[in-house]
Amino acid sequence: MNRSFSPVECRAVELDKVAWVPFPEALSAGGIRWKLLNVAPELGSWAAIFECPAGSSFNSHHHIGPGEYYLTKGKMEVRGGSEDGGDTVVAPAYGYEATSAFHGRTYFPVDSEFYMTFLGPLQFTDAPGGQTIALVTWDSAQAAWEASQAG
Amino acid sequence: MNRSFSPVECRAVELDKVAWVPFPEALSAGGIRWKLLNVAPELGSWAAIFECPAGSSFNSHHHIGPGEYYLTKGKMEVRGGSEDGGDTVVAPAYGYEATSAFHGRTYFPVDSEFYMTFLGPLQFTDAPGGQTIALVTWDSAQAAWEASQAG
Amino acid sequence: MNRSFSPVECRAVELDKVAWVPFPEALSAGGIRWKLLNVAPELGSWAAIFECPAGSSFNSHHHIGPGEYYLTKGKMEVRGGSEDGGDTVVAPAYGYEATSAFHGRTYFPVDSEFYMTFLGPLQFTDAPGGQTIALVTWDSAQAAWEASQAG
Amino acid sequence: MNRSFSPVECRAVELDKVAWVPFPEALSAGGIRWKLLNVAPELGSWAAIFECPAGSSFNSHHHIGPGEYYLTKGKMEVRGGSEDGGDTVVAPAYGYEATSAFHGRTYFPVDSEFYMTFLGPLQFTDAPGGQTIALVTWDSAQAAWEASQAG
Repeated sequence: MNRSFSPVECRAVELDKVAWVPFPEALSAGGIRWKLLNVAPELGSWAAIFECPAGSSFNSHHHIGPGEYYLTKGKMEVRGGSEDGGDTVVAPAYGYEATSAFHGRTYFPVDSEFYMTFLGPLQFTDAPGGQTIALVTWDSAQAAWEASQAG
Repeated sequence: MNRSFSPVECRAVELDKVAWVPFPEALSAGGIRWKLLNVAPELGSWAAIFECPAGSSFNSHHHIGPGEYYLTKGKMEVRGGSEDGGDTVVAPAYGYEATSAFHGRTYFPVDSEFYMTFLGPLQFTDAPGGQTIALVTWDSAQAAWEASQAG
Repeated sequence: MNRSFSPVECRAVELDKVAWVPFPEALSAGGIRWKLLNVAPELGSWAAIFECPAGSSFNSHHHIGPGEYYLTKGKMEVRGGSEDGGDTVVAPAYGYEATSAFHGRTYFPVDSEFYMTFLGPLQFTDAPGGQTIALVTWDSAQAAWEASQAG
Repeated sequence: MNRSFSPVECRAVELDKVAWVPFPEALSAGGIRWKLLNVAPELGSWAAIFECPAGSSFNSHHHIGPGEYYLTKGKMEVRGGSEDGGDTVVAPAYGYEATSAFHGRTYFPVDSEFYMTFLGPLQFTDAPGGQTIALVTWDSAQAAWEASQAG
C-alpha cells in the first residue's frame, strides 16, 4: 500500500434549512420535490427526501443496489401496489427494495413524504431489463442537485 | 459458478403494527425503546427506529460501517454534541455517521425519535479503540429482537 | 420485522473444473474469455476471472461501484495506461477502480489474466457520462454465463 | 446537502515492489506473512495477500461482512475443511465467505498463497458468538501495516 487513509467525515443536515426543489420532470410526474441530503462517493450511495403530492408518481425504474425508505406521511403504491403484486403502504412505514427490483409504477394517491437511502443507482427504463433512459448515480444526483441550487 | 441465484425479496413494514420493546439496558440508559425493521444478511446491514425519552442515552460505541439516521422528533447530541466537537441536531434532521466514528455519548435532552440504517455492526466499547463490550451485528440484533417478541 | 433471516451460504469453486467461455464480443475485442465465479444478489456484487490474449481489450465503460482486480499474469493498461494519465501495471499487481471511474480503454499488450470483484454493475458507454450501451449487473452477468453453459 | 463530493481516486500496486512482513502472531501460527494492498475507509473494506507456509493457520474468527479469496497456490482448509463440514480447496480456487461465517480453523497443509478482499472487519474469537479477542477493521489493519513498515 502506497498511502495512508483517514476515516471519512461525519456530517449532518437540519432539513428545514434546505429548500425543496422540483425533482426532474423527465423522471417523474405530478410535481414531486426533493432535497438531496448526502452522497457517499466510495460506495456510490446517496440519501434524499421526497415530497409527493396526491396523484404524483415516479417513472418506471430498476433499483441497482438495495434501497430503504421510511414513509413519514401519506400512502405509497410500490411495484404496482398490493392490488398488482406489489406493496401499498400507509405511513409510518418502512420498506426494503432489493437490488434488481423493478418499480413499474410508484404512485402516491394522497399527499406523501418519504426519506430514502440508495446503495447504488436507479436505472430508469420502460420495462424490466429494458433500455436505459437514465442512470441516476450518486454523482448525477449531486450534479442535478447542484444545478438546482445554482439557479 | 455452481449454482444460480435469484434476486432478494422486497419487504415492507407498517410501523404502527409493531409494538415498541425496551432496547437492552446493557447498551443504553433512560428507557430507550426500539423496533427492528429489517436485517440484510449478505452485507450485514440492518434498520431500526428508536424512541428516546428526555434524558436517555446510548452507551459509547464505534460505528463499524456507515450509518445514516433520520431524526423525526426531538433533539440528539452525537459525538459529544456541538459543544464538544460533535453535532447537536434538531428534528427533522439527517446525519451520516462514518465508518470508525466513535460515539462517546449519544444523548437526548428532550423526547426524541429516529430511524437509522446500519451497514455493519456497532462495537460498544468504553473508549476509542478500546476492548469490545458488545458487537451488535445484524444477527445479534435479530436474536435480541426475536427474544423480545417471544416473551 | 415480519420474518427471520439466516446467514448466506459460503461457497467455493476450483477454477480448473470450470471451462473458459468467450466473453461477449459486443463488449470486448480480441478474444477475451472468462469464468464467472460468483454473484451476490443482495448487494449486487460479482466475481470473475478473465483471460486476455495479447492485443485484446474491453470496450469503454464506467465502474458503477468499486472494483478490485488482481492481475496474475501479463500487463494491463487501464484508463489509457500510464502514458495517458491512467495506470499500466505488470503482474503480479493489485488495483482499486473507484466508483464512477471511466475506463476509456483497457488494453492487454501481452497475454494476460486477472481476477476481479465488482460491487455493482459496469456501464458500457462510448464516453464519460454518455448513453448506456449495456449495463452489466450481477443478474445480467449470471444470465450471460448460464447461456454460455447451456450451449 | 452542504458540500460537494468528488469521486474516490483509483490506485494500483505492483506486488513485487512491496516486501512481505510477518502477520501478527497473536492472530496466526506458523509464520504467515502478508502485504496490505488497500483500504477503503468509507465502507470499511480492505484487501491483502497472504503467504502461508505448510502447517500454518489463522486463529478462529468470524467474518463480519463478506470476504472473497483467490487461492493462487497450495491448499486451504476453511471452516474445518471438507472432512468437518467446511471446504478444502486446491489452487487455483475462488471462495466466498459469507457475513457471519465462523472460521474455527483455517489451515494450510502445504505452502500456499492467497489474495482476499474483506468488506468489513474480522472478529477474532474462541468460539462462534464468543467474546471478542481482536476486531481487525480497515483502520487497525492499516495501523498494523504501517507499524511494520516503520521498523
